[in-house]
This record gives sequence, C-alpha cells and structure tokens, in this order.
Amino acid sequence: MAPSRVRKEVDAALHAFVDRQRPMLSTLGDDLVPMVTALDALLAGGKRLRPAFCYWGWRGSGGGDCPEIFAAAASLELLQASALIHDDVMDGSDTRRGQPSAHRRFEALHAASGWRGSAEAFGAGAAILLGDVCLTWSDEMFQGSGLPEDALRRGRPVFDVMRTEVMCGQYLDLVGQARGCGVDPRAMVEAALQVVRFKAAKYTIERPLQLGAALAGSGEMAALSAYGMPLGIAFQLRDDVLGVFGDPAETGKPAGDDLREGKRTVLIALTLERSAPAQAETVERLLGDPGLDADGVERLRAIIVETGALDACERMIDRYADEASGALTSAPLTAEARAALSDLTIAATARRV
Amino acid sequence: MAPSRVRKEVDAALHAFVDRQRPMLSTLGDDLVPMVTALDALLAGGKRLRPAFCYWGWRGSGGGDCPEIFAAAASLELLQASALIHDDVMDGSDTRRGQPSAHRRFEALHAASGWRGSAEAFGAGAAILLGDVCLTWSDEMFQGSGLPEDALRRGRPVFDVMRTEVMCGQYLDLVGQARGCGVDPRAMVEAALQVVRFKAAKYTIERPLQLGAALAGSGEMAALSAYGMPLGIAFQLRDDVLGVFGDPAETGKPAGDDLREGKRTVLIALTLERSAPAQAETVERLLGDPGLDADGVERLRAIIVETGALDACERMIDRYADEASGALTSAPLTAEARAALSDLTIAATARRV
Repeated sequence: MAPSRVRKEVDAALHAFVDRQRPMLSTLGDDLVPMVTALDALLAGGKRLRPAFCYWGWRGSGGGDCPEIFAAAASLELLQASALIHDDVMDGSDTRRGQPSAHRRFEALHAASGWRGSAEAFGAGAAILLGDVCLTWSDEMFQGSGLPEDALRRGRPVFDVMRTEVMCGQYLDLVGQARGCGVDPRAMVEAALQVVRFKAAKYTIERPLQLGAALAGSGEMAALSAYGMPLGIAFQLRDDVLGVFGDPAETGKPAGDDLREGKRTVLIALTLERSAPAQAETVERLLGDPGLDADGVERLRAIIVETGALDACERMIDRYADEASGALTSAPLTAEARAALSDLTIAATARRV
Repeated sequence: MAPSRVRKEVDAALHAFVDRQRPMLSTLGDDLVPMVTALDALLAGGKRLRPAFCYWGWRGSGGGDCPEIFAAAASLELLQASALIHDDVMDGSDTRRGQPSAHRRFEALHAASGWRGSAEAFGAGAAILLGDVCLTWSDEMFQGSGLPEDALRRGRPVFDVMRTEVMCGQYLDLVGQARGCGVDPRAMVEAALQVVRFKAAKYTIERPLQLGAALAGSGEMAALSAYGMPLGIAFQLRDDVLGVFGDPAETGKPAGDDLREGKRTVLIALTLERSAPAQAETVERLLGDPGLDADGVERLRAIIVETGALDACERMIDRYADEASGALTSAPLTAEARAALSDLTIAATARRV
C-alpha cells in the first residue's frame, strides 16, 4: 500500500471519529465550538508518522488490510495532538504546524470577545482542557476501533506503557532543562540522548510499531525494537537539526524557534561539548532568550557549525539510520512491510538542508 | 457493606495500582520520584465519592462483591486526581486537600534544587504532565480492572461520555467566568446551574452510578439519572456553601479561598440576583481579588447572608435532596444499595455550618 493511501485512510478514520463526537458537544453548548475548531486546525497538519508505523507493524506481522486497524492506528494521532497542545502551553510556543498554537487561539478568542480577566490564563486553561479531551478521545478511539477484543487485549500493554513513557520522558526533559548543563559536557550529550530515547524514539517509532505487531499477535518485540529505536533516535536528531537550520515552511515554526525556546537537544549538547569557553559563554547567553533576533540566530548557527557539532550530529544520524536499516533487513516482517518501512526510514532521516 | 469498608477497598485497589506502576517509573529514572510523591500525597485525601456511587450502582443492579469492581470504581479517583491537578494549575490554587497543590510542590522542588529558569513555569509544566499521567492511568486501571470483557464493553460508553462531559463542563465554566455577569441576573443563576449539571452533578454522581449499573448489565439509566442528577446538584450547592462558610479543616482550603478565586457559583449568582446596586458593586469589586483579606471575606459573607442568598441556596439544596430521596425510593436497585445510597445522600448534602 502506498504511503499516501495509508495517510488518507488514517485521516478518514480520524475525521470520522471527531465527526461522531460533534453532536454530543453540540448538546453541551454552542460555546464548545472553538474547542473543536482548534482541534480540527491542529489535525489538518501532521505527518501521521505514528499511525503509519503502527499500521506497518500490524501488516508486517500478518494483520489484514481493514478499516479497524486504521482507527486503532489513528488513535495515536489524538495522543500526539494532546502532547503537542500541552507542550505548547508549557513552552509558551506561539505556533504549531504553521498555525497559531491552541492556547494562542483561545487567547485570541478571549481578546476578541472582550471577556474579563487574563486572556493568557484563559488561553492556557482552555488548551489544557483541549489536550485532556484529546488524550481521552485517543483511548476512546483505540478501544472503540472495532478490532477484536483479543487483539485489543494484546495491544493494551504497549498502548499503556507508551503513554506513560512519553509523559514521563517529557517530565525528565523539563527537569533536564531546569538543571541545565552540569560540569561534564559528556554527561550532557548522554542526558540529551536519554530524553530522545524516551520522549521521541520509543514514542514515535518503537512503540507504534510494536503496538501494531502486538495487535496482530506477534511476540517479536525485541526485533522490532532493534529497528525502531535507532530509527527513532535518527529521526529526532534530524528534527533537532531542522529545528535550527530548517525551512520554516517545512517545520511550521519561525526560523530559530527551537533556539529561542532554549531546547537542550543533542545538537546543542554536542556544540557545548566542542565549544571554546568564549563560544560556550555565547551559547549559554543567547540560548533560550525569548527576544533572540535574526542576528542572534545566525551567531548560534555559526557556532554550531564551527565547533563541528553539526557534522558530528549528521554522523550520528547516519550511524543510527544505518543501524536501523540493518536491523530492518532481518526483522520478522513481511516483505511488503519491510519495503514500506525502508521508505519511511529514508523519509524520516534524510538531509533536507 | 459499611461505607468505611467500601472506602478501604477502593483505597487498597488504588494503592495496589500505583504500586504496580512504581517499578516502571524507576527504570525511567530517579528524577521521577517527585511525580509519584505528589500523586501519593493527593491520593491520601479525598472522600472517594465517585467510586462509592459506582460501587453501589453495580451492587444495586445485581453485581457481586468482588475485587474487580473496586478496581474499576477506583479508576474514577485517578480521573478526579487529574481534574484536580489541572484545575489547580488553571486557578493558580495554592492548596488542595489541606496540602500544597501539585504545581506548588513542583515549584518548591525547583526552588529547593536551585534550578534555572522560572520555578513557576516548571511547577505548572510538571503538574500538567502529572495530570496527564493520572488521566492515562485512570483509563489503564479501568480497562485492566479484571472485570469480564462484556462488562467493560457495556461500561465503556458511560466511562467515555463522563470524561468528555467533565472536561467540556470545565471549559464552559472558564468561558462563563470570563464572560462575567450579563445584564440579566436570572440568566446568571441558570448559567451557573448549567455548569453544576455538567461539571458536578453528572460527573460526581449520575455517571459513576450509571457506570456501575452499566457494568452490571442494567439498562435503567434514566431511573438512576432521576436520583443522581438532583443529588449531584444538591451536593455541589452544599460544596459551594462550604467553600464560603465552611471550616478550613474540613474543606482543606483557607477560609474564603473560593471568594478569592472569584468562582461564579450558584450561591454568588443568587447573591447578585438579590443585591441592591451598592451590594452588587461591592461583590463585583471584591470577588476574585487575589489579595482579599479576612475583612473582605467577612463583607462578602455578610452580603450573601443579608440578601437572603444563603437561605435561598439552602432551600434549593433541600428541594434537590428531597427530589433525590424521592427518586431513590422507587429506583430499580436492591434494598441494600438503596439503604447505602440513602446514607450517602444525607452525608453529601447535610448542613455542616
């Protein structure tokens, strides 16, 4: 099945689910319209990576091509919507997928309506609730996907552990950012990689793939890990590079936004590891400055390149992507799934700058 | 079964579930310890009302006395924990159940650790994530309660609608508070009652009761509504009265905290409806003032009493409690459940000031 058809089926399942919720929201009150509008806008974007890996985990383990697996897989997109909405509140991000973030939308609604109190507090509160709704709907959609109950029972432990992992990984990330860099830059790279493992690699690729396989009755979790984990790391490192050097049209975020937010990525850890004292001082001063301008972004980019951190990061991406491709060759999957996953591996990690 | 035994069994199920999660969190990292500590502290308090209504909905519809129903019922306590944690972030509340709120705990952790960045932002972010974990665990605990799959399949729609309702009710409450009072005070009382219906009455009593009954195979949803809705309204109105006039030792909140937060309760709407212009002006000026002192609290209390709003609210509580008791008499429930629910009705609505 072509990637575009997987995406289309996932989208259809997602919209069908949200459409089924609309009447209930209408009975609760017209004031709920902005909630669904904000969700619709968010769901209009996104690459549907997690559903795709879930789908191919299922197909690759002998599962048939049926509407039910698309519903189960698409439920991961609602989990992701919840994580993004809450992330944006925590980071104070203005944009997501090239549009205003959910809390900024609600803030604008408050301002436009001339309501009382703080528009910012209203925006954050409403976005927290919308994220909660998405989190709830994710498991409602999974459990109501129509897959046989024994399939759901097999998939549940993966579904559950995945959710706890991503939230805890996010908390560990918050702690890491608050703690800042220790005296040992080597430990910083390892700490950043640890966050990547839990927050990104497991969540984006390993667990969705294992979920699909578990739903289909496969017990080959370790073999799927051997492919999913390195691919997930490579994917996140690519995302980190794009966050600094990428085209805003592709990332959906203004240039340098990750630098402005002060994200302690592996790329930044590699930079600090390789920095001379003066460079390190500049990085520490500019990184996370909300008012960072184009000049500041350029200075940081220059240091990331000059220290060799960008090259080091690209080599890591290549190494992890190669490891993933190697593991895929011997993974216990159907040939069709292996071919599709090979395409996804390239799409998720290839250079785009 | 005595109420204290229901509580004990629910507590045991809750602690067993959280204990089963600890090893996984340990493997993710020692930094997660404060997450579980904050949850343990929150779960140490609470009246376990929702699990009790769920349990008696089950028993009253012919369900047997088994550990599985306690696990399913206790899952509602994790849903409630999530709602409380997120509420406290939105309201900026300092305390919950007589202890620091979750975000204040994380804020204190940040300060005590000498971490960088804003302690307040860290506290809010960590609390949002802890609330997400609780929401996820609630569903994991419900689905993994061990009840037969056909029981879970019957209960799911109630479980799902209940969660969406409480979050949307919360959003409608935010909108209502932001919109403030309209020109028509009568509409204000009705709007406040509408929030009570969705956010409190359905969520605290009607849905838990229906959930237990649905799990046991009962189809008597309307009859349970006829009891649960008025009781839920009476319960919330009692809570609103306690929020203004109650003993801090019982409410777990400093005296006048609801007034300081500016909650637009039915009691406040009744006050404004009955206020002379000068009284209304004072209420509008003092209500929601974060710096409201003991004198201000006393002035507001006096207006609530002098306008007759407190008496009117007590009459509403009596009327709704009577309606609930009447409906209970003819509810399709076992005699044992009716007796237990009759005790709960009194406990949830009786005067305590």
